[in-house]
Amino acid sequence: MPAKQLHLGAFMRPISIHTGAWRYPGAWPDANFNLNAYVRLIRKLEEGRFDAFFMADHYAVLNMPVEALKRSHTATSFEPLTLLSALAMVTERIGLIATASTTYNDAWHIARKFASLDHISGGRAGWNLVTTANPDAALNFGHDAHMAHGERYKRAREFFDVVTGLWDSFADDAFIRDVESGIFWDPAKIHVLDHKGEELSVRGPVNIARPIQGWPVIVQAGASEAGRQIAAETAEAVFGASATIEDARAFYADVKGRMDRLGRNRDHLKILPGCFVVVGSTEEEAKAKRAKLDSLVHYESAIASLSIALGVDASRFDPDAPLPEIPETEASKSGRERAIGLARRENLTVRQLAQRLGGYGGLAMVGTPAMIADRMQEWLETEACDGFNVMFPWLPGGLEEFVDQVVPELQRRGIFRRDYEGRTLREHLGLPRPANRFFA
Amino acid sequence: MPAKQLHLGAFMRPISIHTGAWRYPGAWPDANFNLNAYVRLIRKLEEGRFDAFFMADHYAVLNMPVEALKRSHTATSFEPLTLLSALAMVTERIGLIATASTTYNDAWHIARKFASLDHISGGRAGWNLVTTANPDAALNFGHDAHMAHGERYKRAREFFDVVTGLWDSFADDAFIRDVESGIFWDPAKIHVLDHKGEELSVRGPVNIARPIQGWPVIVQAGASEAGRQIAAETAEAVFGASATIEDARAFYADVKGRMDRLGRNRDHLKILPGCFVVVGSTEEEAKAKRAKLDSLVHYESAIASLSIALGVDASRFDPDAPLPEIPETEASKSGRERAIGLARRENLTVRQLAQRLGGYGGLAMVGTPAMIADRMQEWLETEACDGFNVMFPWLPGGLEEFVDQVVPELQRRGIFRRDYEGRTLREHLGLPRPANRFFA
Repeated sequence: MPAKQLHLGAFMRPISIHTGAWRYPGAWPDANFNLNAYVRLIRKLEEGRFDAFFMADHYAVLNMPVEALKRSHTATSFEPLTLLSALAMVTERIGLIATASTTYNDAWHIARKFASLDHISGGRAGWNLVTTANPDAALNFGHDAHMAHGERYKRAREFFDVVTGLWDSFADDAFIRDVESGIFWDPAKIHVLDHKGEELSVRGPVNIARPIQGWPVIVQAGASEAGRQIAAETAEAVFGASATIEDARAFYADVKGRMDRLGRNRDHLKILPGCFVVVGSTEEEAKAKRAKLDSLVHYESAIASLSIALGVDASRFDPDAPLPEIPETEASKSGRERAIGLARRENLTVRQLAQRLGGYGGLAMVGTPAMIADRMQEWLETEACDGFNVMFPWLPGGLEEFVDQVVPELQRRGIFRRDYEGRTLREHLGLPRPANRFFA
Repeated sequence: MPAKQLHLGAFMRPISIHTGAWRYPGAWPDANFNLNAYVRLIRKLEEGRFDAFFMADHYAVLNMPVEALKRSHTATSFEPLTLLSALAMVTERIGLIATASTTYNDAWHIARKFASLDHISGGRAGWNLVTTANPDAALNFGHDAHMAHGERYKRAREFFDVVTGLWDSFADDAFIRDVESGIFWDPAKIHVLDHKGEELSVRGPVNIARPIQGWPVIVQAGASEAGRQIAAETAEAVFGASATIEDARAFYADVKGRMDRLGRNRDHLKILPGCFVVVGSTEEEAKAKRAKLDSLVHYESAIASLSIALGVDASRFDPDAPLPEIPETEASKSGRERAIGLARRENLTVRQLAQRLGGYGGLAMVGTPAMIADRMQEWLETEACDGFNVMFPWLPGGLEEFVDQVVPELQRRGIFRRDYEGRTLREHLGLPRPANRFFA
C-alpha cells in the first residue's frame, strides 16, 4: 500500500505573512504588489508540485494602530479573484484558492466568479469560505455594526447552499450547440433555484456553465464550535490553526469524528494546518535566519501585540531582560500561557518574545530540510494533519529554499508527489467531483 | 494638423451579438465560452491596434422566451472581470473594458476589482458603468422588484462618486517601502472617504494602491435624458446607440453641448456608436453574407421580436410575402416605423425582416472595406462620432476580415493608428489621467 500522501498549499497573505518579510536581506520589498513577482513565485511552486496557491483576503485597511499599519506590507494587495485569473494563464496544474466572505458578498456574484475562475483555469479553483471577523469591514459595506458570530455562521451555511445550488444550475451536458437544428442548449437541463431563506433570496440560475470541477473546492478555516461544525458538513479542505502536534491531533480527531457522525467519508476533507517554515543548512543557521527576520519587526508595534497577549502593559519591562513573572489577568488565558511558555522554553528576552509574536506566532518548523521533513512526516503519519498550508518567511528566497530543498526530501520519502497526476485541484487533493443535485 | 483619429472598441456580447453567429459556416459554435477562442481573438484585435476589448454583461438568464433562450449563444458566458484579468496576461497594449452594474454591486468591491485589473494589466482597465435594465436581475440579489429608473440613476451617480473616491484612497506616492527605516507607506498619504449618502455608506479606504491610470476609464451607454446627463458629467467614453448618421450627430451635439455647459473639455469624452460590420470583396458578397447570417436566426423567435416591434401579431402574415400595411397601434412608434421603413427600403419579406431584427437590428455597415471605411470616415469627420464599438457578425471570420481588410484601409487614410503610441487605455483614447481629489 502506498504511503499516505502529503498535500501542500502555499498560503499567501498576501505574500509572506511575516511582518518583517519585506525587509529581509535579498527580499523583494514590493512582492505583495508586484505581478511579475507573483508570476515567478507561482511558477516555482508549480515546479515544486504544490497542490495549491492560496490567497488570503481582507476587506478593510484600518484594523491596526497606525504605528503598525505604516510598517505593514500586507494591508494592501491585488484582489484575489482577478489576480488568480491572471495567474491561471501562466500556470498549468497548480490549484488556485481565493478567499471570499459570505458576510459581505452577494451569493450570485460569488457563484459566478468562482465558476468563471474554474473554467478559466481548467478546473483549478478553490473557494476559501470565510465569514470576516474584522469589524472594520462592515463599515465598507453600508453596515454600522459587524454581524454577530452566530448570525455570520448561519448566513454562511445558507450562502454555501445557495452558491453550490447555483453551480448546479446547468446539467453537465446542458450545452448541445447543434449547428444544424439551431439548438444551443436544452432548457430541460437548467434548474431555477428559487431560494427563499432566512438570510438570502436568490432566484437563479447563474449565467455560466457548471464548473469543470462540478464545484470549486470548498476550503474553510473556522476553529470555533460553529466553524468546526460547518467544516465537517461542507468543507473539503480546512486551514488548521493548531500550534502543537497534540492540539492538531485533537482538532483532526474532532473534525473527522464529526464527519463520521454526519456520514461523510473522512477522506473527503483534508486538514492542512498553517505552517511557517524557515530552512537552513544547519539548525543553527535556520534559527539565525528566523532571529534576523524577527529582529526586523518594529519593536513598538511588537510590544503592543505582546501587551495584548499578556494582558499587561509590556512596554514597562526591560526589553533586553528575560520576561518577568506575569500575574493572572482577565486576558485570554491561552494567549498568556502561550507567550510565557514560549519565552521560558526558548529563553527569549522581552524584545525577542515581542518580535516573535509580532512577526508570526503560530506553528513554525525551523531547521534543516531533513528536520522539517521529519516533523511534517510525523504530523502526517500520526493523524495530526493531511498536509500543510506552508507560509514562507520572505520572498523569493524563503520559498525557493523550501521548493529546492524540502520538497525533494519529502519526495525521497515517498510522501509527496514527484509529478502531478491529475489536472484539477480536486484531483490533486484526492477529492470526488460532486454530483449535480438536480440532474443525474 | 493631423486628421481627427478614429477610436475602435471591439464590443463582445459576450462574443458576437448576432443571434445566428454561432451557426455561420466556419464559425466557432462555442466561441462564447472558449478561453482559447478569446485568446486568439483578442490577440488579433491587438494586431489590428484596437483601442479596447469591451465585454458586455448581464445578471440574469431568464429574460427571453424559452424558444429564443434555447437557441441563444449569449445567455451564458465567462464573468468579465475574471476573463479580462486572464486576457491581460496574453496581451500587452489593448484596453480591457468590463461592464459592471451600480444597482447590484457593492461600491467597495467594484472599486477594488477594477483597480486590481488596472494594476494587473499595466493601466488598461475600463469600467462600463450600467444600471441594469433587466428586471429579472433583481431576483438574483434579494430584491422583489427592480429599482425604478430614476432611483437607479440617482444611485449610479452616487456610486460613481464613491468608487472614484475610493480609487483616490492613496496618493500616487504613498508607498515608500524604505527597508532601512521599516516604513512601508506614509499614513499621511491615505484618505478615509467616510461617505454617508442617501444610497450608500462606505468608509474606505480601499485596500489597493491608486490605479495606474489614476482611475480606470469610465464608459457609459445611457441614451435616456438621465443617461445623457450622467455621461456628460462623468463618462470618458460613451457606447452610442444611434442607427443613422443624423441621429448620431444630434446625440453627439447634445452630449458634447452638455459638457460645454458643465465646463468639461469635450475631447475628454469619446462617443463610439455600436456598429455591426460585414465585410465582402463586393457589396453583393457582403450583403449575401449578412442574408445568410440572418437566415440562421430561428423564425419563431424572430417573429416574436417583429410582433413586439410592430405591435401586431406578425405570425399570421405570409412569411415569404412583403410586409402588409400595418395599422397604427399603441406600440412604440419609433420601433414600428423603423421596422416598416427597413422592410420597404430593402424590399424584405416578412421572414427576412423578422430575421434581420432578430439577428441584429441596429447600425450596420455592410460592404467592401473601402465602403465601410468611407462611412466610418464620414461619421468621424461630420461629428457623428469619435469612433465605433465594432460588433462582429461571427467568429473568428467576421473579426479577422475586419482586422485584415478594413483596418489597413483606415490606416491608409491616416485616420487610424498604425501602431500603439501609448501603453494605457487612457493614452489610446487621448484622455487625461485624473488628478487625485485628496492629494496634490
